[in-house]
Amino acid sequence: MAFKTDIEIAREARKKPIQDIGAKLGILSDALIPYGHDKAKVGQDFIASLADRPDGKLILVTAINPTPAGEGKTTTTVGLGDGLNRIGKRAAICIREASLGPNFGMKGGAAGGGFAQVVPMEDMNLHFTGDFHAITAAHNLLSAMIDNHIYWGNDLGIDERRVTWRRVLDMNDRALRDVVTSLGGVSNGFPRQTGFDITVASEVMAILCLAADLDDLQRRLGDMIVAYTRARTPIYCRDLKADGAMTVLLKDAMQPNLVQTLENNPAFVHGGPFANIAHGCNSVIATRTALKLADYVVTEAGFGADLGAEKFMNIKCRKSGLAPDAVVLVATVRAMKMNGGVTKADLGAENIAAVEAGCTNLGRHIENIKRFGVPVIVGINHFAGDTEAEIAAVKAHVAAQGAEAIVCRHWADGGAGIEEMAQKVVDLADSGAAEFTTLYPDEMPLFAKIETVAKSIYHAAEVTADQKVRDQLAAWEEAGYGDLPVCMAKTQYSFTTDPTRRGAPEGHSVPVREVRLSAGAGFVVAICGEIMTMPGLPRVPAAETIGLDLDGAIDGLF
Amino acid sequence: MAFKTDIEIAREARKKPIQDIGAKLGILSDALIPYGHDKAKVGQDFIASLADRPDGKLILVTAINPTPAGEGKTTTTVGLGDGLNRIGKRAAICIREASLGPNFGMKGGAAGGGFAQVVPMEDMNLHFTGDFHAITAAHNLLSAMIDNHIYWGNDLGIDERRVTWRRVLDMNDRALRDVVTSLGGVSNGFPRQTGFDITVASEVMAILCLAADLDDLQRRLGDMIVAYTRARTPIYCRDLKADGAMTVLLKDAMQPNLVQTLENNPAFVHGGPFANIAHGCNSVIATRTALKLADYVVTEAGFGADLGAEKFMNIKCRKSGLAPDAVVLVATVRAMKMNGGVTKADLGAENIAAVEAGCTNLGRHIENIKRFGVPVIVGINHFAGDTEAEIAAVKAHVAAQGAEAIVCRHWADGGAGIEEMAQKVVDLADSGAAEFTTLYPDEMPLFAKIETVAKSIYHAAEVTADQKVRDQLAAWEEAGYGDLPVCMAKTQYSFTTDPTRRGAPEGHSVPVREVRLSAGAGFVVAICGEIMTMPGLPRVPAAETIGLDLDGAIDGLF
Repeated sequence: MAFKTDIEIAREARKKPIQDIGAKLGILSDALIPYGHDKAKVGQDFIASLADRPDGKLILVTAINPTPAGEGKTTTTVGLGDGLNRIGKRAAICIREASLGPNFGMKGGAAGGGFAQVVPMEDMNLHFTGDFHAITAAHNLLSAMIDNHIYWGNDLGIDERRVTWRRVLDMNDRALRDVVTSLGGVSNGFPRQTGFDITVASEVMAILCLAADLDDLQRRLGDMIVAYTRARTPIYCRDLKADGAMTVLLKDAMQPNLVQTLENNPAFVHGGPFANIAHGCNSVIATRTALKLADYVVTEAGFGADLGAEKFMNIKCRKSGLAPDAVVLVATVRAMKMNGGVTKADLGAENIAAVEAGCTNLGRHIENIKRFGVPVIVGINHFAGDTEAEIAAVKAHVAAQGAEAIVCRHWADGGAGIEEMAQKVVDLADSGAAEFTTLYPDEMPLFAKIETVAKSIYHAAEVTADQKVRDQLAAWEEAGYGDLPVCMAKTQYSFTTDPTRRGAPEGHSVPVREVRLSAGAGFVVAICGEIMTMPGLPRVPAAETIGLDLDGAIDGLF
Repeated sequence: MAFKTDIEIAREARKKPIQDIGAKLGILSDALIPYGHDKAKVGQDFIASLADRPDGKLILVTAINPTPAGEGKTTTTVGLGDGLNRIGKRAAICIREASLGPNFGMKGGAAGGGFAQVVPMEDMNLHFTGDFHAITAAHNLLSAMIDNHIYWGNDLGIDERRVTWRRVLDMNDRALRDVVTSLGGVSNGFPRQTGFDITVASEVMAILCLAADLDDLQRRLGDMIVAYTRARTPIYCRDLKADGAMTVLLKDAMQPNLVQTLENNPAFVHGGPFANIAHGCNSVIATRTALKLADYVVTEAGFGADLGAEKFMNIKCRKSGLAPDAVVLVATVRAMKMNGGVTKADLGAENIAAVEAGCTNLGRHIENIKRFGVPVIVGINHFAGDTEAEIAAVKAHVAAQGAEAIVCRHWADGGAGIEEMAQKVVDLADSGAAEFTTLYPDEMPLFAKIETVAKSIYHAAEVTADQKVRDQLAAWEEAGYGDLPVCMAKTQYSFTTDPTRRGAPEGHSVPVREVRLSAGAGFVVAICGEIMTMPGLPRVPAAETIGLDLDGAIDGLF
């Protein structure tokens, strides 16, 4: 039997009108702002009216370090949402929006896979409801206002060499990484070197995802540092009076988007900050709204648990007051084998020893999640080639850690394939076992926060940094930013800064090469390795084969 | 009594659900793709189903050369649509979408004014339904693919010095007019000098507005010339294989947007190409759709009749097969006075002599429109300070030209203030008097086409151009582009290329400084003077005072 592709399955979805999906959560039709018949934004007045309601239970789906074998974190998030609905619970999922640019590089996109997907998949991978375009516009308005301020006399005394605010586009365009602007003479301004990042790397994106409401959004936008004077005094977005207009541009984008799973269950898809130089979680406003409307909310965080779950806990939850009631850690037998040293070509053969060796990675993540005081359960995302003995090996390893592993077959069977896990998650979340705590207190010095994450989560022996980096952190503490959490920017493939070191290495050194202050988003980024904020296109971009087929359907995008 | 501002009037509008507006034209709810409750796109399948229906009558609203006194072309277009509905006709209007960027420079926006407006005004001046964002994305995808092609080996042999395709943003950002990209070393590509235009200046915008359907859109996108080889062989968008992916990005944007007037009559708002380096009319697909659904369709073209109406006739109508049944030429007493030499400060005083002197400008436009074989009627957009004697002077001048002038009070009174004009327009359009003809045949040489427009419409004595310009035109004729119409890029303030020369000058010289080929849109641009394709922000941008007020309403945008 030939398997259907994700897009074939998505196109066969029997979507319900989005008003029917909203009704499942008690959202009246009037509170939904439709974008087509299968997408809607949830109105801000309605959201404000929910404030006094109790919250449902929050479940975080995270994963082992990603390998080329694939782990299926989003797929499991979607499947678990369907599974919870299937066992009679009022449940919703919260995931991130997709960036447009990368779709034209590699075939990709997709929100979930197999029979655990969110639809309309094509719209979600193209313009969707325009949120990212609004972020691009707001970001670039500020950029234009900075250069315009300098052009008209520079009353604020901006040092043109110290403008840190760049421009953004939602496009993979390496030619824009490093540019000189304002050439061409007097009427075009003062030439200076700058560049473009991809929109998801914008601090505006991080802010949209952390802001409680429009007031908080504007305050945070105003707080962003965009440049320095010659005397190194920071120039804030607010000094340029750009925060109000930016908020106007983001007014609609701040409202969470509602779509549906293949099984017609509600899915909030909102925001999509980079998981390296930002925190990589969907928006706080979407998660909060979902918690007011559903009894169980399943969400996820970017990359593996060492980066994604850590930032979810230490940044998103700390800053918003959210607290997870349970964590599902996704693993696959195949990924365990790769962590155990097997190459992708050899994944087809049963290899118990490799599975056992690779489980050290899984075990480390289990141990890490427990540090946050939240109960964890492992979901084995089932692949057709997994053998009983391999699955048993994973289960045994997890059991030895005092946790449980459940095989999940949502990819092949939808919600019906993940009922056992859904029931376990309900039990775990309802047990009241969670005693959420962040990993470090606000008042810990910034460098010590970095060390705490590196030693507790990565099992590193030390953190190294130049005096310049340490001085910068000290200067920010002096300026009142010492209580911010740290946002680690590190490879997602390893607990170390070397992407090839799988398993559960320890005793390594974590070099902090650079630190950046996101004063509006509210974190200090610690860059441990190369961070690419504007991707390029491959030799043969997917765009070359993307087009409309004879029936007007999109071809080549997935 | 204090007058209400446009935005106050717009906010008090009693909008009907967009489905009710569609129903007035027989559009079923299923054929409308809602964007909120007051905006929708008309589905392409529905549009395709209309092909065999007869067309309604097409009325073009154009104007005298604009003066700082204001003439009210869009206001009259909207008012006339309401007036036609008021006298019992099934009528719709077709206007252009607003560009986002300029709103952050000067207070502005607004679609119409007074009691002749289209709503929702705020959305229309912000992201609306995302069409311009889609154009930005499609344009910049092609830009990225060009540099990416060069980066990976440049199989097409693109001469990096001869890349004509730039990038776009919907933002007033002078710093981006002239930039060097791909700095920073090997991984960022080959440095070259290029720049950004504002999105409305993109050839993609012109194409979206001229394409008959998605197939035609893709064909035209493929036809765009983006660069040349060292041997000056053109490189087409199609050579980069970008046309398919661009079409996918523009798929939704190609569907016309439906909104409503203050009086709940249907308004199609779609596309907005620059009126200088492009043709400045709303989309062909919107106009065609409206003609299939309404008995009378009122549309407008950019700038005064010498530029706007000329391009509407010679480009939009020629290429689409559309033909206007009547033209309404908008004038104001105040603008006649300014054309007659009065300064803005002195507009308050009655000045019959100045009105009479200024009517030469109006008279020239009447004469010009008759050259296209279409009957014309003058609409005097009434201002409170106009005196009876001044109005009588305009009417007498127009009558002497064999036409009629009607006072229109739609600004103050909505559709009720323009009923007389509405009835006259119906009579004129139904009379069958129109025998539309373009000004020149396709087969006329390109330079002769420029001369024809300059001499017939501008009453110039000659067109001057360097040999280089003439050679370029000859080369394009050789390459098969000789049958294209010309798109004149000239100041809108005068029949000459000097913006200060009002009235009806003649015998002047029109210098063609540069010519550009828009091979996909299908015209040759003749640039007669300075053309700004990326505006800047003023010393105190409107953005500084734009924000949300305490009630969450947008403040400072209008």
